[in-house]
Amino acid sequence: MVAQAIVFTLAALAATASAQTYRRTGACPQLGCIWPPDQSEFIAGQVFDIRLEVQAPANGSAPFNGGVPYPEFVLEIGGHGTELTPISNFYQIAEPPVEEHSFSYYEDLFYEQNKTKTLVHALSKSYRHVTLYNPGEYVLKLSYNGGMTTIAHWTVLPLAEKPCAKNVILFIGDGMTSSMATAARMLGHKSINGKYQSRLALDDAPGFGLQMTHSIDSFITDSANSATALYSGKKATVNGLNAYTDSTGDAFNDPKFETVFEMGRRINNAQVGIVSLAAVSDATPAAVVAHTSQRSQSDAIVKQFLEGVTSNFSWTQWDGPDVLFGGGAADFLPRPSNNNESQIDRFAAKGYGVVHDNSSLWELPNTERALGLFSSSTMPTWLDRNVFTKNMETYKAWDGSAGTPDVPGLKDMTLKAIDILHARSKAAGTPFMLMSEAASIDKQMHISDYDRALGELLELDATVRATLQHLKDIGEDENTLVVVTADHGHGFDVFGSADTEFLIAQETNSTKRGAIGTYQQSGLSAYQVAAGNLPTNNTKVVGPHGEGFPVNWSPRYAAAWGLSADVDRFENFVVHDLSNPLPLYSPRENSVELESGDYEANPEDGKGGFFVSGVLPVSGDQGVHSLTDVPVYSWGPGHELFRGIQNSVDIAFK
Amino acid sequence: MVAQAIVFTLAALAATASAQTYRRTGACPQLGCIWPPDQSEFIAGQVFDIRLEVQAPANGSAPFNGGVPYPEFVLEIGGHGTELTPISNFYQIAEPPVEEHSFSYYEDLFYEQNKTKTLVHALSKSYRHVTLYNPGEYVLKLSYNGGMTTIAHWTVLPLAEKPCAKNVILFIGDGMTSSMATAARMLGHKSINGKYQSRLALDDAPGFGLQMTHSIDSFITDSANSATALYSGKKATVNGLNAYTDSTGDAFNDPKFETVFEMGRRINNAQVGIVSLAAVSDATPAAVVAHTSQRSQSDAIVKQFLEGVTSNFSWTQWDGPDVLFGGGAADFLPRPSNNNESQIDRFAAKGYGVVHDNSSLWELPNTERALGLFSSSTMPTWLDRNVFTKNMETYKAWDGSAGTPDVPGLKDMTLKAIDILHARSKAAGTPFMLMSEAASIDKQMHISDYDRALGELLELDATVRATLQHLKDIGEDENTLVVVTADHGHGFDVFGSADTEFLIAQETNSTKRGAIGTYQQSGLSAYQVAAGNLPTNNTKVVGPHGEGFPVNWSPRYAAAWGLSADVDRFENFVVHDLSNPLPLYSPRENSVELESGDYEANPEDGKGGFFVSGVLPVSGDQGVHSLTDVPVYSWGPGHELFRGIQNSVDIAFK
Repeated sequence: MVAQAIVFTLAALAATASAQTYRRTGACPQLGCIWPPDQSEFIAGQVFDIRLEVQAPANGSAPFNGGVPYPEFVLEIGGHGTELTPISNFYQIAEPPVEEHSFSYYEDLFYEQNKTKTLVHALSKSYRHVTLYNPGEYVLKLSYNGGMTTIAHWTVLPLAEKPCAKNVILFIGDGMTSSMATAARMLGHKSINGKYQSRLALDDAPGFGLQMTHSIDSFITDSANSATALYSGKKATVNGLNAYTDSTGDAFNDPKFETVFEMGRRINNAQVGIVSLAAVSDATPAAVVAHTSQRSQSDAIVKQFLEGVTSNFSWTQWDGPDVLFGGGAADFLPRPSNNNESQIDRFAAKGYGVVHDNSSLWELPNTERALGLFSSSTMPTWLDRNVFTKNMETYKAWDGSAGTPDVPGLKDMTLKAIDILHARSKAAGTPFMLMSEAASIDKQMHISDYDRALGELLELDATVRATLQHLKDIGEDENTLVVVTADHGHGFDVFGSADTEFLIAQETNSTKRGAIGTYQQSGLSAYQVAAGNLPTNNTKVVGPHGEGFPVNWSPRYAAAWGLSADVDRFENFVVHDLSNPLPLYSPRENSVELESGDYEANPEDGKGGFFVSGVLPVSGDQGVHSLTDVPVYSWGPGHELFRGIQNSVDIAFK
Repeated sequence: MVAQAIVFTLAALAATASAQTYRRTGACPQLGCIWPPDQSEFIAGQVFDIRLEVQAPANGSAPFNGGVPYPEFVLEIGGHGTELTPISNFYQIAEPPVEEHSFSYYEDLFYEQNKTKTLVHALSKSYRHVTLYNPGEYVLKLSYNGGMTTIAHWTVLPLAEKPCAKNVILFIGDGMTSSMATAARMLGHKSINGKYQSRLALDDAPGFGLQMTHSIDSFITDSANSATALYSGKKATVNGLNAYTDSTGDAFNDPKFETVFEMGRRINNAQVGIVSLAAVSDATPAAVVAHTSQRSQSDAIVKQFLEGVTSNFSWTQWDGPDVLFGGGAADFLPRPSNNNESQIDRFAAKGYGVVHDNSSLWELPNTERALGLFSSSTMPTWLDRNVFTKNMETYKAWDGSAGTPDVPGLKDMTLKAIDILHARSKAAGTPFMLMSEAASIDKQMHISDYDRALGELLELDATVRATLQHLKDIGEDENTLVVVTADHGHGFDVFGSADTEFLIAQETNSTKRGAIGTYQQSGLSAYQVAAGNLPTNNTKVVGPHGEGFPVNWSPRYAAAWGLSADVDRFENFVVHDLSNPLPLYSPRENSVELESGDYEANPEDGKGGFFVSGVLPVSGDQGVHSLTDVPVYSWGPGHELFRGIQNSVDIAFK
């Protein structure tokens, strides 16, 4: 009854003008903001910026002082038995200037519908490039607006005296969940009477756990702030790359924090490699070194890859990764937004070997830094490179010309990156760190192309298997921690099978749905028998792509699968293949834009299938990320630390 | 190119009359069947039946010998360096009689649409109650139909010389996935700026892994054959309880195999307890001791609880569990199908203390065997018992009268069961084994009532926490292995939040969908602030049900969640509560039956919400199980064995 009483007392006090759909400022529920905010954790010696904001809404549901914030505000820090001390005294630095800005926002969807914005005036200060060396608990107190206070508790974690692993390889299966790994296993491996005859490489990881992916101020994350959490140990706001999102709307003035890759380079002179099947300016590869609250700033991100943060603010010195392989060459070509300056030339001028196809990739010397840009934007999927090769027509090469089959996959890029990092780290006597991303698990899940998404997962699995073997071959397996995880999930699962022949032969939506087999009628994996055979064939057959991949990607009895949230669409469960006369779009386009800007199901995609209405806003054309914890697989020294259930930020600390 | 060649050769040989949606006989793709089939694993000394079938289709796509199976067939066994020996020689037993039967089935959905069945004649033999004591590999060869052969490989695993734990407590979160645990954590625990202030008890398990749930002959499982796998180490066909499903259609003549609970009783005289929030005749509790290919045989299951398998065939002696607590009293009351004989009286006559409410439960002596039947069918959910108490009207007490609030939850039943098992095992100097099931995670997921499903998961979590503490209190924590797992999943995930006020205020389907907030607009958990507060309130408040449960189950900003496959329905994301004037059905009835027998969305359920069409056959009215691997959490001696990725059958062996 005591607890009950507390509830109702607090309910009566409720009077905040920040709602759920929209917030006045992320990670700052009060009118005074401290970044890094309450509950932040740091690695001892990790560099970061401190920012203070003091706000006063001029209108809306809770105006303050006519919209005028009090000009006096001070941040104090205490800890280790010391009294609260003004931050400028603590660091023996001059007080930075007070800046002024205003912003406006909708308090909720009703305010938005009525086009009524709340205006807020704010004052701010930033203390750039500071750190805390002594592990322990700190308290921060911001006093502002004539008597208000905001408190933050910070924890500084000790840097391991003796790191358990010399080298680190981090694989990100973007958007990967354990339900996807389950489905990929069923596609790629033969089960006879309930017993798998082979398994995923991931299945045999000696370390296995889960991590929580939520953002700092929303329970669903995007790939920018989730990669940020994995690489820096800091939760951030959606779209933020190693920076907290303040209320200015400016992409570059936000408080930054250092990544473990930057720390590895600064402290140990580590070799750093970045590999992705996405455009390299995309969130997951960008987050290795970029600092901006807006992941869409591709020009700035490309520049930060080469020289770090140089404009406006002091920051850790950075002179480029040892390896940068992936797609997204368009962001490196001369264009108005980058002053028509070829970024590829700038890399070349700094001594990078530059390649654009798989043959040239393997000719690169292992001793030199390397830039490989293999497509104009996202690189081709494993399925299109290897099985449905007509779909390669839909990709563009690095210079915008027609795509070439001589394009590397994740395995090629990763193994070559290891060779370069290994040779260079051996020569310099330094450790190496590699981030390698299977980006299109996510990209294909977004457009409900489950076959392609799982093909990417199987390629990741094959890459991990090859990497573990390669580390053994070069004698680095006992020095190298290998971690495979995801940045977030999609609410994907398999719920049965679809008799695609029967489905397409039916006339109505409801009779077509009768083609879905659930429970015992789901049957066995039809992807593990040769075309024309039925899944009850209990013989183990290895397909053209070797063990671990389907024998047949276009079975009559296809997996029936989907997302817990999607847009309006037609589903026929047939693999999308430009050479299929149905026809089937590839890449999938499950919805089309109307004149109003809203989207509706595209009857040309999923032809012969049944209509399914979605649950997501009609303003979007694809699926979204989900809440689920994602898997963490680990091998090598220190893998024990990655067992069990952990927060995403713990990955960086470990 | 060699692999490619193999593929096409085998494709050319394809000629089996078993399809995917329907199979001639599960786990038997050839015309000669051996049960236990190829790839079976046994614990040394585990008792099982062997069954042989020889089939000949009379018509259909692949008739054989005019539908006449050859009368001569023989099974040989070899292994341990011994030559193949006829099975009757190996066991020194007389050949059992050959039996004859026929059955018919649809080869696929087109055959079904045309109402064309294939008729099959079959001969069979069963060798009952055999075992294998010597660990190792065995080969079985069935010769039949004038030259055909079917081969099976069996493995017998050694029984641990010295068991690592004396006692075992197995919790089953029916239908539970790690995505549900993630969602339950968000409902029940406060996160401040990305850092949880408390966690699930499950999150802190020292052992964590996943297990694969698929059936022997379909990749989606039901709760009968999945519980069978967990308790006996044998994959089976959907609906099968510790028996393989032969082609006769008879529920009781199928080949059986012993469960680890039966083995514990037979070998160590272990005390056995069974606790469930479902009817105790439901699949998960029934699978502890029942043997039938049809989980729906509730009369037989209730009899098998008390006396084991007694009719027709020899089997392990069994004289009842020490504790049987749950719902489903209707199956124990006199009715025509059980010869109007009260099964409760039969339990009482064997010395069981019988109770029907929570107060009486706690008055039971710990020294006597006990039967607790607390409701007519499924027991009330945690949410209805504790929060939406008006919904208790929808439940019936054990005798069919109106439900009472004096009904135990999972924690009550489990702790009392432990007290009885502990007292009795201490007195007898024997170990104890308990299975405790949070049944309605599954039952509520089936009807898309996510709030109730996750309430059940939080109750399971609180029960596990209390159990670990109770084991410490009684000094049994170092002797007791505690494992929490699931039998299968549902394709559930959270994809954002829903502004329920805005949603209901909109007029059209598409404007209502605009109330869904994704990514940064999902915001923070509104379940962790008092009613009237907004989720941005960063204060930790403990609600009336203590830490680990929501403070507020009916927030304006509700979680937006769903299944990867569902039926047609209306969604408003408001918790279902009979006292809500919307009105909202409880239990949820998201679809209603039409005259045709098909189902369509029920506009009275989810009123004010938007319509969503499903992907499942319109012949059903609820969601289905999914493929995903499910979590395994473990504590106590031997928990290390349950780390990583394993098959469901491995749980029994460990």
